[in-house]
Amino acid sequence: MEIERKFLVDRLPENLDQYPHIEIEQGYLCTSPTLRIRRAGDVFWLTVKEHVGATTSTAIHNREEEFRLSEEKYMQLRKKCDGQLVIKTRYRIPIGKLTAELDLFHGSHEGLRIVEVEFPSTDEADNFIPPEWFGHDVSTDPRYRNSYLAFQPII
Amino acid sequence: MEIERKFLVDRLPENLDQYPHIEIEQGYLCTSPTLRIRRAGDVFWLTVKEHVGATTSTAIHNREEEFRLSEEKYMQLRKKCDGQLVIKTRYRIPIGKLTAELDLFHGSHEGLRIVEVEFPSTDEADNFIPPEWFGHDVSTDPRYRNSYLAFQPII
Repeated sequence: MEIERKFLVDRLPENLDQYPHIEIEQGYLCTSPTLRIRRAGDVFWLTVKEHVGATTSTAIHNREEEFRLSEEKYMQLRKKCDGQLVIKTRYRIPIGKLTAELDLFHGSHEGLRIVEVEFPSTDEADNFIPPEWFGHDVSTDPRYRNSYLAFQPII
Repeated sequence: MEIERKFLVDRLPENLDQYPHIEIEQGYLCTSPTLRIRRAGDVFWLTVKEHVGATTSTAIHNREEEFRLSEEKYMQLRKKCDGQLVIKTRYRIPIGKLTAELDLFHGSHEGLRIVEVEFPSTDEADNFIPPEWFGHDVSTDPRYRNSYLAFQPII
């Protein structure tokens, strides 16, 4: 079970390049459940995400299963994707014991910035106090799902 | 984790229609990992299977993750399948505490009969004594994988 919250970004952290970052390309073969392929650097993944029921929490609850792909299988599945590929640079920024995953989007979403935090429990998700550089909470806004962005050039 | 063994069928059990059975149609979007869609009666599934390492056991070890699909999503993914759809009738036949899943294939595999048994542990898989009606053990024969059959009209 994946429990996460998602925010827009008011301002970027300073010295961003000091944090580990990786180029990501991803595409979608299905949106319900989410069937995603991703190239992260030179590693390839197939991920299935299923949204898990309604909840009173502010967080997103997903069942998420990941499988490694060869580059060959990735390229075969890439041809089957709907919409467009989503391209972004992902920075991993420590926030206390947690990690913020900051995505700077490229291509037709150039300028879009989203930050996600994954939590070990719903309580911790609900009680999370976002750092000052975080913007509006868009956890429950479907327009900021990457699978939505694959079909929408501009928000 | 799924632990199973697979056999050909020497002769069909008597009064086959007394056992619960269902019409299955399935196709493959990827073979490594196996990315399968299946219609079983009027229920639709997306399944990802990943073969789990080499083993000294005679059984097949798979990580298997299943997700429900709507008929609409099934029909969309059906167009993305490679090869041909595999069509079969599956009978569930009790063998003591276990269940044999007997598949009678149709279409271009008409006449092919495969029976699978899933086990709670590797020990039980290895010590399984097949009923008399079971034929040759093809657990490790890739030609009897359904994902292989999708690309081969005749064995």
